[in-house]
Order: sequence, then structure tokens, then C-alpha cells
Amino acid sequence: MQKKGLLGQLIQNLCCLPGVGPKTAQRMAFHLFQRDRNGAKLLAETLLRAIDNIGYCRQCRTLTEDVLCEICADKSRDSTIICIVESPADVWIVEQATIFKGHYFVLHGRLSPLDGMGPDELGLDLLEQSLATGTIKELILATNSTVEGEATAYFIGELARKHRVLASRIAHGVPMGGELEFIDSGTLSHAFNGRKEV
Amino acid sequence: MQKKGLLGQLIQNLCCLPGVGPKTAQRMAFHLFQRDRNGAKLLAETLLRAIDNIGYCRQCRTLTEDVLCEICADKSRDSTIICIVESPADVWIVEQATIFKGHYFVLHGRLSPLDGMGPDELGLDLLEQSLATGTIKELILATNSTVEGEATAYFIGELARKHRVLASRIAHGVPMGGELEFIDSGTLSHAFNGRKEV
Repeated sequence: MQKKGLLGQLIQNLCCLPGVGPKTAQRMAFHLFQRDRNGAKLLAETLLRAIDNIGYCRQCRTLTEDVLCEICADKSRDSTIICIVESPADVWIVEQATIFKGHYFVLHGRLSPLDGMGPDELGLDLLEQSLATGTIKELILATNSTVEGEATAYFIGELARKHRVLASRIAHGVPMGGELEFIDSGTLSHAFNGRKEV
Repeated sequence: MQKKGLLGQLIQNLCCLPGVGPKTAQRMAFHLFQRDRNGAKLLAETLLRAIDNIGYCRQCRTLTEDVLCEICADKSRDSTIICIVESPADVWIVEQATIFKGHYFVLHGRLSPLDGMGPDELGLDLLEQSLATGTIKELILATNSTVEGEATAYFIGELARKHRVLASRIAHGVPMGGELEFIDSGTLSHAFNGRKEV
């Protein structure tokens, strides 16, 4: 049944959330109306406010409601080390998992010429300007370990070399707690090639 | 890391959706901002509009933005048969699954004196008024098959008997496509007791 009316419209619009299909959207809509009208109202208002106000950090291109994001504005952080990630979500993930106290640079994608993602789309001109100032000591390349992510890391590594800045790639290998039996062969051969003396 | 700012607030507010924890909320927020700002805006606006406008149908107590819901307002439906369900979501579920063309009555809960859910909270006074008019021929009791749902069905059945209206309970037993091996014993014994001649 294609239900019309506001409720039907709301259910349809909830489907724009990732991982939410019509059934989940229906459950969400009914939950909001029966149990949590205040929460729903707050959510709608925050969402509107966020859409109107959240833009990109001028320096690192992550999502923020200010000109500079919290991290770039934090004077206690080391601005000479820059971690390059593919998306704003990756910034959060690195922040939550590590003790990294440098700055970030968000590419909003990866090099993929066929999809029209070239160096300019990734803001590499902006990055190169920063590199040219000579204040940056190290780039940590934390792009994903996909073919495009690796190509992007390589490209930015070359850029760093041109400006005589150290570039490092995060380690890839067997995940902590992982058993060799369940590791794919690509990761395992990578782990062997990248072995370290103990 | 407890991230502050609008984005953090949005992620926190997204957690009011059922089945959405901090990780999913984070993924949703980033998805909306990176891929679907229009969808997010539309969602927020519809949600606000829905909260302001959606109330309860005067006749069947389901959610609607009008005085009477679509089903109660539909002249082609049979108003002499009323299906009693626990929640507005159940109305949709029955509508989607069956060819039932009567009206509904939504209890918004089940009899549960300890939780303060008595006959009045379930709108049974309203239902009794309808029964008293003598226009209703049958009540189909489609409350859930829980202890409280059964008690509620029994209570409403008694109410119907008082007004000499036929009351029926939806069938319970082995689900279609279900294998006996995987059916719980309660359902199976119910299915045996409710067996029908073929």
C-alpha cells in the first residue's frame, strides 16, 4: 500500500538516511510519534540548523560550523604534522582511536580520474600551498587501503617529496587480535613484506 | 572523544531514532552532509511539519493529520466491521498484508494495570459508545499474542458480548512456510488446539 499524507511523506524522506529502507523508516516514524515527539522536534531543528550552518574548515576542509574547525583552531595541537584522510568521518575515527595530536587535511574523496576526481577536486592545490610555506614537517598518509587510496597516497607522497617534506604511510598488516587463518592473502603478503625487526 | 558543536549535537539527536546508536548516528550525519544535503533538509522540514500537524483520528485513534483518518473517511469501506489493534503501526501492517476492508480501532497500548493502562487509557469508553449505537456487526481482535494482548482481547470480547456484537480473534498457529522443527512449543500446542477439519 502506498500511504499518502504527511506520515507517508515522512517515511519516504527518512529513507534518505543510509541503511534505512521503507520498513525501518516506518518503524522510526511510528516510534517518534508514539514515544518521542520532543526528540523528533529537537532532531528536526538541529538538522535544519546544521544544514544552514555547517560548511568546510578553511584550512583542513573538514565539516565545521566555524571558519576554522576545532582541531585547526586548537593552539595546543602540532600544526607541523598533517594527517591526510579521505573524509571528515575519518577524522573522527582517527581522533577516537589514536593519540594523534597534529592537524588533518580532508580530501573529500580519492584520485579517480574517471569519476572526475583530479588533484584540484581533492584540494591538493591548497595542500601544496601549505607545503610551500615550509612549516610542515611530516605528512601522514591515512587514505584507505584501496587501489585508489593507494594511488592517492602515492601521488601526495610525490608532492611532499617535491617540497622536501617527510611523508609516511600508516602501517598495513594483520589487525590486532586477528588470526592468520582468517586473514585474506593480500593483507598477509603485505604483512610479510612490511615485517619489522624485533 | 565527546565532540562538541552542531555536528556533535546532531549525532546525539539522531540517537533518538529507534535502533540508532552513536556509531550509526555518526555515519548518518556524515552521509547527510557529504551526499544528501537536500534530502536532509527535506527530512527536517517534513519532520517539523508532521510533528505540528499529526494528531489522532477522532473515530479510530490512529495517527492522521486530518480530523478523520483516510480509512475512516473512506466511504467505500465497511464501517460495520472493526479491527482492534494495539498501535497505529499495526494498522499499516494489516493494511499491507491483508484485504481487510473494514475500519480499525487503535488502543495505543494494552491492558496493563501496573503501568497505569486501564480501559480508559485504551479508549474503550469511545469504543463502547460505538458499540452502543448498534451499527457494528463484528469486532476482529488483532491485539498481539502476548499475555497482556490476550487479556486485552478477552476484555474487549466481553465488552462486545455485553452489547451483543460478534467478536472474533485472529488465528494463531504455525506461520506459513514454517517448519515444525523450528516452532516453539507454545505456538505448536496452540496450533493443535485450534486445528480445523479439512
